[in-house]
Amino acid sequence: MSRFAPLPEPPYYAVIFTAQLSKDTQGYAAMAEKMGELAASQPGYLGIESTRDAGGLGITVSYWLDEAALTNWKAVSEHLYAQKMGREKWYEHYTLRVAKVERAYAGPKGR
Amino acid sequence: MSRFAPLPEPPYYAVIFTAQLSKDTQGYAAMAEKMGELAASQPGYLGIESTRDAGGLGITVSYWLDEAALTNWKAVSEHLYAQKMGREKWYEHYTLRVAKVERAYAGPKGR
Repeated sequence: MSRFAPLPEPPYYAVIFTAQLSKDTQGYAAMAEKMGELAASQPGYLGIESTRDAGGLGITVSYWLDEAALTNWKAVSEHLYAQKMGREKWYEHYTLRVAKVERAYAGPKGR
Repeated sequence: MSRFAPLPEPPYYAVIFTAQLSKDTQGYAAMAEKMGELAASQPGYLGIESTRDAGGLGITVSYWLDEAALTNWKAVSEHLYAQKMGREKWYEHYTLRVAKVERAYAGPKGR
């Protein structure tokens, strides 16, 4: 399975979530996998890209059709529980940015 | 040094660059470091967040004040050379998305 999200025609939304894991990551991996699957089943989901280094810094960018899709996903009850666990246990620090994608392309060209 | 970018007041721009390294990464690490320093010296630079896993999938998000800052950085001559090396040698695949940040926050709250 590709680790790249599709490239639909803009505009659409990106949620850029950067997070440093804490030392207490018990239950994190299973929850992250579950949330990935749950997100993919939501209306307006376009795709996700995610990576994390050995130091525990991860960047996950999820892509969504419109504001309604973002609002829906943020409020899904199992996701609310995961957010709470993240705040209270798994994340030492995080930033979340909502951004409207204006243009996009893939490469390398000519290969 | 923090691996998180600052949170200036939106709107501003995010360049979301997701890339899978190829097997030929000779010279890549040194160039990546150099480009990070060069980007930070450009007008309109706001910050950068970057991480890569052991499989070679990296996500780098750089933040910029406005379109003029993006256009300038894309055309800096040393950066053009790095882009060419990326296309021809270092990257198996990549996507680049330009997005306008509408809102942002950090957490966890209440700690």
